[in-house]
Amino acid sequence: MDGAAATMCPQLAVVGAGEAGSELVAMAEQVGARLAEAGAVLVCGGLGGVMEAACRGARRAGGSTVGLLPGTDRGAANRFVDVVIPTGLGEARNVLVVRSGEAVIAVGGGYGTLAEIALALKAGTPVVGIATWELARAGLAIDDVERVESAAEAVERALTLAGARPR
Amino acid sequence: MDGAAATMCPQLAVVGAGEAGSELVAMAEQVGARLAEAGAVLVCGGLGGVMEAACRGARRAGGSTVGLLPGTDRGAANRFVDVVIPTGLGEARNVLVVRSGEAVIAVGGGYGTLAEIALALKAGTPVVGIATWELARAGLAIDDVERVESAAEAVERALTLAGARPR
Amino acid sequence: MDGAAATMCPQLAVVGAGEAGSELVAMAEQVGARLAEAGAVLVCGGLGGVMEAACRGARRAGGSTVGLLPGTDRGAANRFVDVVIPTGLGEARNVLVVRSGEAVIAVGGGYGTLAEIALALKAGTPVVGIATWELARAGLAIDDVERVESAAEAVERALTLAGARPR
Amino acid sequence: MDGAAATMCPQLAVVGAGEAGSELVAMAEQVGARLAEAGAVLVCGGLGGVMEAACRGARRAGGSTVGLLPGTDRGAANRFVDVVIPTGLGEARNVLVVRSGEAVIAVGGGYGTLAEIALALKAGTPVVGIATWELARAGLAIDDVERVESAAEAVERALTLAGARPR
Repeated sequence: MDGAAATMCPQLAVVGAGEAGSELVAMAEQVGARLAEAGAVLVCGGLGGVMEAACRGARRAGGSTVGLLPGTDRGAANRFVDVVIPTGLGEARNVLVVRSGEAVIAVGGGYGTLAEIALALKAGTPVVGIATWELARAGLAIDDVERVESAAEAVERALTLAGARPR
Repeated sequence: MDGAAATMCPQLAVVGAGEAGSELVAMAEQVGARLAEAGAVLVCGGLGGVMEAACRGARRAGGSTVGLLPGTDRGAANRFVDVVIPTGLGEARNVLVVRSGEAVIAVGGGYGTLAEIALALKAGTPVVGIATWELARAGLAIDDVERVESAAEAVERALTLAGARPR
Repeated sequence: MDGAAATMCPQLAVVGAGEAGSELVAMAEQVGARLAEAGAVLVCGGLGGVMEAACRGARRAGGSTVGLLPGTDRGAANRFVDVVIPTGLGEARNVLVVRSGEAVIAVGGGYGTLAEIALALKAGTPVVGIATWELARAGLAIDDVERVESAAEAVERALTLAGARPR
Repeated sequence: MDGAAATMCPQLAVVGAGEAGSELVAMAEQVGARLAEAGAVLVCGGLGGVMEAACRGARRAGGSTVGLLPGTDRGAANRFVDVVIPTGLGEARNVLVVRSGEAVIAVGGGYGTLAEIALALKAGTPVVGIATWELARAGLAIDDVERVESAAEAVERALTLAGARPR
């Protein structure tokens, strides 16, 4: 009995745009809720849109949330972030979001999200995607993103893929 | 009732060397415990020595801990870290430790700790020090570190100084 | 007469994979040569493949090269790099490569290159691509990359687009 | 004959405050000039004060200068910087300045400079200081900074110490 938990909670990153339509927002909120129900800590970029929706879903389901902000002002975090890391690194904080997740769930997304998907795949971190970027080179689809249709599937696949990685 | 806490927990950074003697370790553990009792989240560099002792103290007192690791391997975190951010930035992660604290408590420390003290003072973040670096220039003591002797004092002063900062 | 040049040289970033086939390597070398002939400084990730070929081309044409390495060992730079910045930031250095170019030229590329393209587009930096990633979302091509076929075109377009940006 | 120089130029970092009195400015300018005469590339934080003076000295003596800016606006560089790296990392760019030098010369300096000295010593990079910070712990001077009185001495010692390091 030394106060350390037997095992650390799994940490999953949720990435998506800071401005998003109502469908993606609803999806992100469900992703957050499912992650919380599974006992995972949610890590994200801490701002609005998909990030805020995911945090709100996680918090309402009793989960914990971490926001890695681009700026140095902690007040920029959405109000569902528990732990605020005001990195001050600008878009370089995207690298930290990805590194902090044992798997990444991408919900829709703009160019920042595309960068996060690419950085995750470069690092060998599993990426599960809902309505997100499709990639090709020389007319040939190149896609290591696992594509799913629902929040439940996204969280289940992400947790499975995260568990499959050597720690 | 929307699931968001009324107020975010205060976050304080504890900095100190990865290898430390038993006196500093005991002091750091008490600092961690006091921070947890005050309801603050402890942020640190996530490794051994002072960092591990502070996390152990916080965790045993029921608090939450965040470790910003220099490398990309989450397994390098001490086992009292709840949220692991494997930054992969090397010593540049010291900047993030400092930015994540509303005040910084320095316990002893080597050159990494000195960098963190300097970065905090540069950013205008209050620093409370126990048995830590003394600074001078041209033979003149220049010291914006608030020096205390006990863990209780350190936490009380750090929380007060953090509260005094505009958010 | 104060020793400052009247105008700073334009800086362009060349991005591409650390391992590349002979066609892309030849293309990258020509890109480097054309940049040097145009008086531009070439910034890249400092490693092999497309990066080394571009540096070799630039150097042989009398130009200057900068390598922003992921690690801290300056010896990892290819031997055609003049200024070595061993960032120690891992893939987060990709953000710096992009920020250092007034425009970005992508030659082929893997997931690291995709991240750089995405980060550049996010930041509003023009991207010119040769045989590089194609992007779509929901089956719809979304492409702000200007696609060209030759090194000469790539450099001409990149310099024009860079010049069009407010400084 | 392949266009690669036989040996890369030594790179030295010059650190000091962005605002400095006329004595330190004159000293920094001489340091820059001596570095240029020795064939070294000068790396610095790219802003004013000691940084600008060192760049001016280097440029007037025909040398090359690199500025690692805290922000993303290349226009913030002083006009004697040849290669501009607008890191956008804030004070975390200090880590890169230090990593880019085979030795560090500190001229005077505020808390940013103190952080750079500490980061260099942590990394095992030699530091030569002119009128800069003095360090102690528990009343005991702890000083791995090599102290000199003149620009000529500073450059000579820094080059020697840099050369003494394994590459």
